[in-house]
Amino acid sequence: MRNQSRVVIESIYPQIDGGNHFIKAVVDQIIPVQADVLVDGHDVIAASVLFKHENDKNWQEHRMSSMENDRWSGNFTVSKQGHYSYKIQGWVDYALNWQHGTQRKIDDGQKVTSELLEGAEYLSSISKKANKTEAAYLKELQSAFKDPARYDEAIAGATSEKLHQILSKYPEKKLVNESEPLGVYVDRLKAQFSTWYEFFPRSAASEEGKHGTFKDCIELLPRVAKMGFDTLYFPPIHPIGEVNRKGKNNTTEAKDGDVGSCWGIGSKEGGHKSIHPELGSEADFKKLVKEANKLGIEVAMDFALQAAPDHPWVKEHPEWFKWRPDGTVQYAENPPKKYQDILPIYFESKDWKNLWDEMLTAALYWIEEFGVQVYRVDNPHTKPYYFWGWLISEVKKKHPNVLFLSEAFTKPKVMHQLAKRGFTQSYTYFTWRNNKQELIEYVNELTTTDQQWFFRPNFWPNTPDINPWALQGSMESVYLQKYFLAATLSSNTGIYGPVFEFMEGAALPGKEEYLDSEKFQIRHWDWTQENKLTTLIARINELRKEHKALQQTNNIEFLQVENEQLLAYYKFDAAKESEIIAVVNLDPYYAQNGWIQLPLSEMGISEGQQIKVQDLITKSSYIWDKEWNFVELHPALPFHLFKVEK
Amino acid sequence: MRNQSRVVIESIYPQIDGGNHFIKAVVDQIIPVQADVLVDGHDVIAASVLFKHENDKNWQEHRMSSMENDRWSGNFTVSKQGHYSYKIQGWVDYALNWQHGTQRKIDDGQKVTSELLEGAEYLSSISKKANKTEAAYLKELQSAFKDPARYDEAIAGATSEKLHQILSKYPEKKLVNESEPLGVYVDRLKAQFSTWYEFFPRSAASEEGKHGTFKDCIELLPRVAKMGFDTLYFPPIHPIGEVNRKGKNNTTEAKDGDVGSCWGIGSKEGGHKSIHPELGSEADFKKLVKEANKLGIEVAMDFALQAAPDHPWVKEHPEWFKWRPDGTVQYAENPPKKYQDILPIYFESKDWKNLWDEMLTAALYWIEEFGVQVYRVDNPHTKPYYFWGWLISEVKKKHPNVLFLSEAFTKPKVMHQLAKRGFTQSYTYFTWRNNKQELIEYVNELTTTDQQWFFRPNFWPNTPDINPWALQGSMESVYLQKYFLAATLSSNTGIYGPVFEFMEGAALPGKEEYLDSEKFQIRHWDWTQENKLTTLIARINELRKEHKALQQTNNIEFLQVENEQLLAYYKFDAAKESEIIAVVNLDPYYAQNGWIQLPLSEMGISEGQQIKVQDLITKSSYIWDKEWNFVELHPALPFHLFKVEK
Repeated sequence: MRNQSRVVIESIYPQIDGGNHFIKAVVDQIIPVQADVLVDGHDVIAASVLFKHENDKNWQEHRMSSMENDRWSGNFTVSKQGHYSYKIQGWVDYALNWQHGTQRKIDDGQKVTSELLEGAEYLSSISKKANKTEAAYLKELQSAFKDPARYDEAIAGATSEKLHQILSKYPEKKLVNESEPLGVYVDRLKAQFSTWYEFFPRSAASEEGKHGTFKDCIELLPRVAKMGFDTLYFPPIHPIGEVNRKGKNNTTEAKDGDVGSCWGIGSKEGGHKSIHPELGSEADFKKLVKEANKLGIEVAMDFALQAAPDHPWVKEHPEWFKWRPDGTVQYAENPPKKYQDILPIYFESKDWKNLWDEMLTAALYWIEEFGVQVYRVDNPHTKPYYFWGWLISEVKKKHPNVLFLSEAFTKPKVMHQLAKRGFTQSYTYFTWRNNKQELIEYVNELTTTDQQWFFRPNFWPNTPDINPWALQGSMESVYLQKYFLAATLSSNTGIYGPVFEFMEGAALPGKEEYLDSEKFQIRHWDWTQENKLTTLIARINELRKEHKALQQTNNIEFLQVENEQLLAYYKFDAAKESEIIAVVNLDPYYAQNGWIQLPLSEMGISEGQQIKVQDLITKSSYIWDKEWNFVELHPALPFHLFKVEK
Repeated sequence: MRNQSRVVIESIYPQIDGGNHFIKAVVDQIIPVQADVLVDGHDVIAASVLFKHENDKNWQEHRMSSMENDRWSGNFTVSKQGHYSYKIQGWVDYALNWQHGTQRKIDDGQKVTSELLEGAEYLSSISKKANKTEAAYLKELQSAFKDPARYDEAIAGATSEKLHQILSKYPEKKLVNESEPLGVYVDRLKAQFSTWYEFFPRSAASEEGKHGTFKDCIELLPRVAKMGFDTLYFPPIHPIGEVNRKGKNNTTEAKDGDVGSCWGIGSKEGGHKSIHPELGSEADFKKLVKEANKLGIEVAMDFALQAAPDHPWVKEHPEWFKWRPDGTVQYAENPPKKYQDILPIYFESKDWKNLWDEMLTAALYWIEEFGVQVYRVDNPHTKPYYFWGWLISEVKKKHPNVLFLSEAFTKPKVMHQLAKRGFTQSYTYFTWRNNKQELIEYVNELTTTDQQWFFRPNFWPNTPDINPWALQGSMESVYLQKYFLAATLSSNTGIYGPVFEFMEGAALPGKEEYLDSEKFQIRHWDWTQENKLTTLIARINELRKEHKALQQTNNIEFLQVENEQLLAYYKFDAAKESEIIAVVNLDPYYAQNGWIQLPLSEMGISEGQQIKVQDLITKSSYIWDKEWNFVELHPALPFHLFKVEK
């Protein structure tokens, strides 16, 4: 193929899988861009990053600057929600090239009369674009270029920095080359900074033995708000199947009065667009959402695409389920695990288009009728990737504020693929990362590889499905440490609330499952309880809101500490207006001390320069003026959250 | 976009820049392929690599196998020259999935009667594709599946390895997904394995003071063949410009009788399609090419796109050159370097399409009229990348045997870009890599990064343009060592012959330029001379022809040696039928000894196992039965080339 352009553009960063997937950002984020931009020979080239929002007509342009080894860097800011495109443009800058070549000939002692005549032509065409002052200067220079008597003046002007600035400002773009556009999807800030609290509404009653209701939940909202959570996530609130209903502790036979698993969705009372009658009415739920919003809390719903055997879909759309040769329907199973109360959706159904449409309708229903803006999606990895790409994109076209959290605790590439298809946030392996090396490795993987551009982690120390070994029967210091890590390593964080804050770590023997799990029964909690953990969670959440450095995840640098039980990290915002140093004692039993190395160059300070670090929890302040500084932490309060003041 | 396929394919290896450029191979090469192939849930999937030659109608298929972490690997062999496409195909294998699921249920103690009925359906449809024996077996099994009385027999058959093999052999591909095709360009073997000798035909005369001719060159062919070279490269053989002709040692004023630089192409005698009259006639050159071919030598021409001021192009196509405002034409210049005898082609000319066509015509002329099959391209980095991509592709469409060596000694990404655009081979930085660490780092960069797929190195210790510091005034041991390294590290190698083999290292003071360079004058050589260097070069070249391990570059593993002056490496062919261990003493003055570690696992041997290593130069043999083995090398013969026998 013939193409006269001489500039080649390659290896653009960031991009995911050659541009097959968009990168992710939030409103007002600065996206750094790099690319190889080359020309044959030795000509001077220039490059820009061009970008535009899907609703914009024209591309905006930011000039790039050249680094080492034919690499160029630049950036652009995404100021609106939605899809952006960006691409790189490169060209030979003839005027700058002329200036550079003329300078080299002068340095070589050559007479540049002919070059000045050539330059005069560039000046003439550029002066048409320049402002008045510039144009006057160019005109004057042009006369000098043409006047042999003014040769010295002419070469001084020709090689001047002033002329260089003007030439750079008004490039004559000829034979421009452009890369194929790449995509960014921009979300509201909450995609990146959110604090989740999960409880089962049926356990919300203040009176023991009673089924909790949305009205009870409304009573609990001030408590959730006071603790600083901005997202209240409920397991499914739909009618619970009665056929094959599970009993307490996942037993197969439900006894009278057993409430079943709320993930066994659907009964004669309705399916994915209905509310479990015992929780209350549609009006109650609407009120709950509204009251929550007033307190700065969004209610997150569970989007669990599966059906109890008595879900209306099973009768109305039998082709959406897999029927076995013996006429029975296939329930969910991963031997030896069995979910007799749950039928998986058969996505290979011939009626798949209607099936997809119905799923979308269900998602839109709660958004459009009840104002729900956040979905936590149950086991998305057991439904096709293309389906999620389609569904999320359809929802966000109409409702760009809606966020999707992917609950896929599975193989890494499966989790990544879901994120690439559009999930806003993802649960992570944080739940099982305990020692210093594991934590550093994992967070570095999330924040320094390409994952930083598509996989937004949400760190949960526990969930109703996971009572991790590290929390089972643990002491307070472990809970303190886990919440602190989750909430300061990651800007998205959440807890399955009551069992965590009341430190109810009892487990089914030999399993990472809670004993008497709320998945299968109602639990009674004393919601009036406050303890050291609730106080400190509230304080940490308050600090997250106050300090921008804690509202991003990809802004972390781990610090050297000569103690394997002490983990220290530096976090910062782009403008370095908010700088935090966090230190955690990972030893639940003993005080640990050690020396922390400050990242001097990253912090922009030099050895000997005094900085003040103030512990935002205890309000103690220290003056540090060395590169290495002593810290000691006791399990009773196993962390420092230092604000750095220079 | 809706797509019901459940399989996702990503991160295919190898590929260059997201498939923008083809990878390179030679005939009969096995291309290893890897890809991420994923499905939602836990279903059993399968994957294939599909490939086809540009002239084939149908895709061929090779099944891939699953590795760790959702990565799949496979390979395919390219058996013809030209363009191939390859792509990855993935699908859920329903029958295998059924077998796997049934096995898990049996392991869990479940009765699988319904599963057997389901299996009977798979067996029925697969038996239509199976051969007679297999079909009979499947039919029998099917009856057992349906007969409750034969349950034990049925489940034994259902979970048998035999059935597994049949199911794997006849996959039912439904909802298949495929990656976008990627490209391979396949060359003849010589692209990868070639041994070059360069001399100036005008210095070929046996009598001092006479201008060499093609007839003299023909006399030298047996000598070149005896030394084992298969490619004889001549600097330009076209008429040399008379205007601004250069004098000896690059002086600006040519004296009477000065022959000028042969890169100053074109005079009243003609241009790129003419022969310098003093070298002989077209018939002479044709005969030279033919005689060379008879001896297994191909004549490589220089393709140098530039013109002397008196080149016919300048008058006939003034618009192909850049004219300055003062009416003069721009000569080639990179201050303070000046090439007054050379005008660069102005590729930004408005008449660029005709210009490109003429360049192509010039390239085709020597191929079609004289049988030339190899071009060494002069300074391709000063002409546009797109031009090269077009020209090389146009030539190879008609003449796939033609090879292009890129003479670009410049910035790494520029050299890489030329290779990506289609150059068969490239000159490299080998010329300046001297110590052990530099050599290991550079060869590893070439052979273990993506460069292995697009950048085919050709290692030259010297060229007429480069008399490297390391060779200036050096002793024989350095020349021995350099040739050995060039010819065993890289399967493409070459020397600018006479100055190298006669060790004429005299340089212009302070420059990496030869004194009395043949670029500007005729030199007289005693072509009857033979010395230790010529003998060893011949022996090394002979061994390169005998040992497949030396006919590839990307098959190298450096070995641990506890001596910074000893470099050791293991080379092998894919079938491990040819295995070589090379050891070089990099110290030109002193003997060096040390212990070499054998790469036991790579070699497929264990500690204690005896191997015989025979030095192919000296014929000495050693029995090694340890992981670490002693070697000692003297500068008089500074290398071992061991053949490994197990």
